[in-house]
Amino acid sequence: MKSELDVDLRSDTVTRPSAEMREAAATAEVGDDVYRGDPTVLELERRVAETLEMEAALYVPSGTMGNQIAVQVHTDPGDEVLLEGESHIYRWELGGAAALSGAQTRPIDAGERGVPTPEQVEAGLVDRDLHRAGTGLFALENTHNYRGGKAIPKTRIDDAAAVAHDHEVPVHVDGARLFNAAVALDTLAAELVESVDSVMVCLSKGLGAPVGSMLVGPETFIEEARRVRKLFGGGMRQAGLIAAPGLCALENVDRLADDHANAARLARGLDDLDGIEAADPETNIVVVDVSETGYTAAGFLEACTEAGVGGVEFDDYTVRFTTHLDVDREDIETAIDRIATIVG
Amino acid sequence: MKSELDVDLRSDTVTRPSAEMREAAATAEVGDDVYRGDPTVLELERRVAETLEMEAALYVPSGTMGNQIAVQVHTDPGDEVLLEGESHIYRWELGGAAALSGAQTRPIDAGERGVPTPEQVEAGLVDRDLHRAGTGLFALENTHNYRGGKAIPKTRIDDAAAVAHDHEVPVHVDGARLFNAAVALDTLAAELVESVDSVMVCLSKGLGAPVGSMLVGPETFIEEARRVRKLFGGGMRQAGLIAAPGLCALENVDRLADDHANAARLARGLDDLDGIEAADPETNIVVVDVSETGYTAAGFLEACTEAGVGGVEFDDYTVRFTTHLDVDREDIETAIDRIATIVG
Amino acid sequence: MKSELDVDLRSDTVTRPSAEMREAAATAEVGDDVYRGDPTVLELERRVAETLEMEAALYVPSGTMGNQIAVQVHTDPGDEVLLEGESHIYRWELGGAAALSGAQTRPIDAGERGVPTPEQVEAGLVDRDLHRAGTGLFALENTHNYRGGKAIPKTRIDDAAAVAHDHEVPVHVDGARLFNAAVALDTLAAELVESVDSVMVCLSKGLGAPVGSMLVGPETFIEEARRVRKLFGGGMRQAGLIAAPGLCALENVDRLADDHANAARLARGLDDLDGIEAADPETNIVVVDVSETGYTAAGFLEACTEAGVGGVEFDDYTVRFTTHLDVDREDIETAIDRIATIVG
Amino acid sequence: MKSELDVDLRSDTVTRPSAEMREAAATAEVGDDVYRGDPTVLELERRVAETLEMEAALYVPSGTMGNQIAVQVHTDPGDEVLLEGESHIYRWELGGAAALSGAQTRPIDAGERGVPTPEQVEAGLVDRDLHRAGTGLFALENTHNYRGGKAIPKTRIDDAAAVAHDHEVPVHVDGARLFNAAVALDTLAAELVESVDSVMVCLSKGLGAPVGSMLVGPETFIEEARRVRKLFGGGMRQAGLIAAPGLCALENVDRLADDHANAARLARGLDDLDGIEAADPETNIVVVDVSETGYTAAGFLEACTEAGVGGVEFDDYTVRFTTHLDVDREDIETAIDRIATIVG
Repeated sequence: MKSELDVDLRSDTVTRPSAEMREAAATAEVGDDVYRGDPTVLELERRVAETLEMEAALYVPSGTMGNQIAVQVHTDPGDEVLLEGESHIYRWELGGAAALSGAQTRPIDAGERGVPTPEQVEAGLVDRDLHRAGTGLFALENTHNYRGGKAIPKTRIDDAAAVAHDHEVPVHVDGARLFNAAVALDTLAAELVESVDSVMVCLSKGLGAPVGSMLVGPETFIEEARRVRKLFGGGMRQAGLIAAPGLCALENVDRLADDHANAARLARGLDDLDGIEAADPETNIVVVDVSETGYTAAGFLEACTEAGVGGVEFDDYTVRFTTHLDVDREDIETAIDRIATIVG
Repeated sequence: MKSELDVDLRSDTVTRPSAEMREAAATAEVGDDVYRGDPTVLELERRVAETLEMEAALYVPSGTMGNQIAVQVHTDPGDEVLLEGESHIYRWELGGAAALSGAQTRPIDAGERGVPTPEQVEAGLVDRDLHRAGTGLFALENTHNYRGGKAIPKTRIDDAAAVAHDHEVPVHVDGARLFNAAVALDTLAAELVESVDSVMVCLSKGLGAPVGSMLVGPETFIEEARRVRKLFGGGMRQAGLIAAPGLCALENVDRLADDHANAARLARGLDDLDGIEAADPETNIVVVDVSETGYTAAGFLEACTEAGVGGVEFDDYTVRFTTHLDVDREDIETAIDRIATIVG
Repeated sequence: MKSELDVDLRSDTVTRPSAEMREAAATAEVGDDVYRGDPTVLELERRVAETLEMEAALYVPSGTMGNQIAVQVHTDPGDEVLLEGESHIYRWELGGAAALSGAQTRPIDAGERGVPTPEQVEAGLVDRDLHRAGTGLFALENTHNYRGGKAIPKTRIDDAAAVAHDHEVPVHVDGARLFNAAVALDTLAAELVESVDSVMVCLSKGLGAPVGSMLVGPETFIEEARRVRKLFGGGMRQAGLIAAPGLCALENVDRLADDHANAARLARGLDDLDGIEAADPETNIVVVDVSETGYTAAGFLEACTEAGVGGVEFDDYTVRFTTHLDVDREDIETAIDRIATIVG
Repeated sequence: MKSELDVDLRSDTVTRPSAEMREAAATAEVGDDVYRGDPTVLELERRVAETLEMEAALYVPSGTMGNQIAVQVHTDPGDEVLLEGESHIYRWELGGAAALSGAQTRPIDAGERGVPTPEQVEAGLVDRDLHRAGTGLFALENTHNYRGGKAIPKTRIDDAAAVAHDHEVPVHVDGARLFNAAVALDTLAAELVESVDSVMVCLSKGLGAPVGSMLVGPETFIEEARRVRKLFGGGMRQAGLIAAPGLCALENVDRLADDHANAARLARGLDDLDGIEAADPETNIVVVDVSETGYTAAGFLEACTEAGVGGVEFDDYTVRFTTHLDVDREDIETAIDRIATIVG
């Protein structure tokens, strides 16, 4: 794909490591993490567990792997995974719940709310009997990517989780952008996951690390997760080299507020253009409806790309732009100006 | 469970074989069907394929096995199965699509209509790409059990199937009660499945056979299905003994009209009772809302059972009664009278 | 395949139901077994459990399903199944352990002995650790089909099982022909499985029932097995119709001695022919080496079929003949005479 | 685990990145590899494909993932994977072939030879039929770790592969230490895999890279492999940071000869000690039999660790020591001296 984009808003995964991160990589103390001998990885795992106020953490190569390990550890084959109808685990992970763990997905459409209501959770939970696969896991996503980076408040998560727990069903949070939610809601990430059983957070999105995500939960859960990581091929050796920039990335939580401000500016700028509708974003994700521009999403993105601005397609007439560490206010203005030339 | 029910309306699976069926079993010419040496099974397979105007058929021990074989033959692991949100494959088959075939289920809520609209199908189909499991199968159900035995007209099926076929996605019909639909719609079963790729029909429901269902489709599909049947443990030996009553059962198609009339009478009779709401049934399934009776579905059924009438629970306040071969008009009146004593 | 064989020795699965069995089918008291309402099935399950001195039994459509249910109930995905290198579960069940349950097979070559020695079991068992799938099940076969119907004595089973149990690994016996072993060893079937955790026995092989096998074990195991049977599509309705002949089949245990005598006569007769080598059989399976006849196994069987005698191919130059209920001493002499004309 | 080992011979995975590698990481040009936008990863993939004279390559986080992706791309569920009885895929990958791909493993004991003979391959290949899962993949390992780092000559691989290809079965080589084999056999790695369909090579073993392996094969194979990598959670973002040291690692091929010489010296030195038997190694792996020392493998290793020398357990009385980049001749002499004190 294009590397000649002037403003790359395809995803917050595109950030390049900072000089400090590169220096951290170059000087990291490392060892063989499969033997649990990499002090930098151990330190990163300790720090993230501490930050989320959970017992233990595991470094994994991607958010997808973190989520899919959670599915496998929490469920038995045939169990159902109850999840939001536009969640990443359901939409963008190649059917991994079924393909890797034999688990049946049961989506709930939570609409703009982003997290199912207690009534929806109650209705979606299934008791195990002779004919039915019971629910083995209830999964949430915060921020909710496909719902436009919606930051889900603690009370909603707690309410939904409480219903699942009443039925002895564990709760996992896909927190690829959990820190964005915490910043937007002016709370601590630990608060947001206080009532759930396991969490996946990404270092390689808004926090800017080059590679890696963390799976976090109770000690016994992480012990089993370590085994599934090996099964999936996620056991790495001197991983400290990439865990070290991950430690730096943890310093980037507060500055996510800038990404949110940039996203707000971008949304307003684009919404002012003819035919473009952009809702006010809650975090760093701007979802744009281009149906009135005469473009399809694909056509619109092609024009953007030619104009030097990158985004991704969400649906036939919907496009996503994501702000991040490598994009400043000036870049945002550039992006608005360039896109203006397309629809002008 | 209870065998002392006076009127057993739990399911049309409870019918007992007729004297003629027993005689057919006793005198059937049999052989080893795993070696394709059972003439009665071969005859049954030929007859059912002919009836549905398809190339070939395969005798299987249950409708669930027929459906799950279809899922496995049509899909690769990770593929999506697009299906109606209350369909049997999704609700009552223990997550088999995921557990046996690694396929991810994507439900569409078709509501009372019973089959998704072309627009819903279009929206639900997923193209295979780097992040997404593509749709491997689109599955329909006719009659639609959970939607109250709804008989789906040919045009709706054709319209939905056409969208799937435009995307090169095959279509399977769970026709556990396909003959009920045909009778209710005054058409031929073959007409109802003219536009689809494979069908499962049950001999052991309204048609009254003791055991068995048929998977029907093109010759190459059935050849592969035979192999998956062996994998699932569905290869039987002198199966002619139960295939023979199956052949008798094929004679019971026309009399399904009686079941439908009985269901209509039952619905009217129950709807007249205090607190019970029963919609007019299209076929042999009567769905009753008991929420105004003061009973939960479970409590209501307990009372029914004590009064000698059997039904099954659909939801917290919804109960299903099913008419069949072993229930005549007098039994229906008995059932209404007995239930009247509960809510009286 | 051929139905015009004069002497069909392809398998003991080819036996046709007796008049008594047909009568039993015709008059069986039946109900819906999915609701546990079929008294004949319940009686059959009770009788078989009692015969094997175990807590409970489950009627299944085939021996393959019985074995594969056992694999699924005993193991978790990734676990190893330790089994004999020529066992049915490993060779002839389409890779079901892996395909249905995600279990890795670890074969042990037990040679003529048919069951691994304690030392072999010890060496084959694997402890679960970070890199290794631990052993979840140890499976034996008695009689051992591919080893020429070898009847495995109780002590060998007990010795092998003891090693597995020392490592807390459960033991399953594929007893498709367990009653042949019991008769050959002049003991009770219950004795042969005293030390194991679950057993599958076939009614449709030497015992002559048209359809069906039994999975036998502790109550909790059978409860879970009932659920997996539904998942695999093995839940049948008025199954009493075929369970009734199964009850008759239980009366056929003692007469298996005739099949063994016939097999012994067949082996001697064939061994006397030019170029044919046939070892003395222990039960009803005669394995014949035809390498010195100038035929391949396939060619030899073709010639046999033309001469009206059926058998099956085991390997490139090895053929299996199986005696059973529908073959008497005269048929055996016919078979020898016919085969004599081929190699004469 | 221990980090205070003076001579760490547990594995060649324990090497720490060189100053040059760290510098390469610090200065690597990176991008988002999921979008194929990381030039360093693309360069590494191009270079490795070129080195092995194959069309394309894919960077993966571990050798296990590379092997398991190959299994999934080459096979369908139920297929058999034919492989050597002590191979890594079979022994040390948590049953992934079954757990992730539903494939049944069929091991062949190739003994000291390390690769099955053509006759063994012929005997092990299974044709797909109604009862049998056909062979979907034949997998080899070179060097063969568990056989003591045996370097398998090209002719043996070609001969075994030819039999598989005659049956239209593809061949995969687990070449975690393929470059060790090439150096030991004084040939090119490309020569060793000329006749096979896909190869996995590790950068993180003898070549000294901190993280990563390469899956190599035809363009269409790698395209599908990229999708399975995403499914398994192996898609990483700015992976150039660890791919850059991987490029440096490719320069370390020739110096593997030093590791081999060190291993030879270690073997001789240990074999001279009382009770220790060590065969002459072919590459960098020294397998030591300690049964005559009075120690078990576990006890022996504990004593070694206390003496500052690391190794790993292979079997009850067998221990493996592996030489690598971070161990020089002086370290080897130290190791011998320290171990001498244990058995002295």
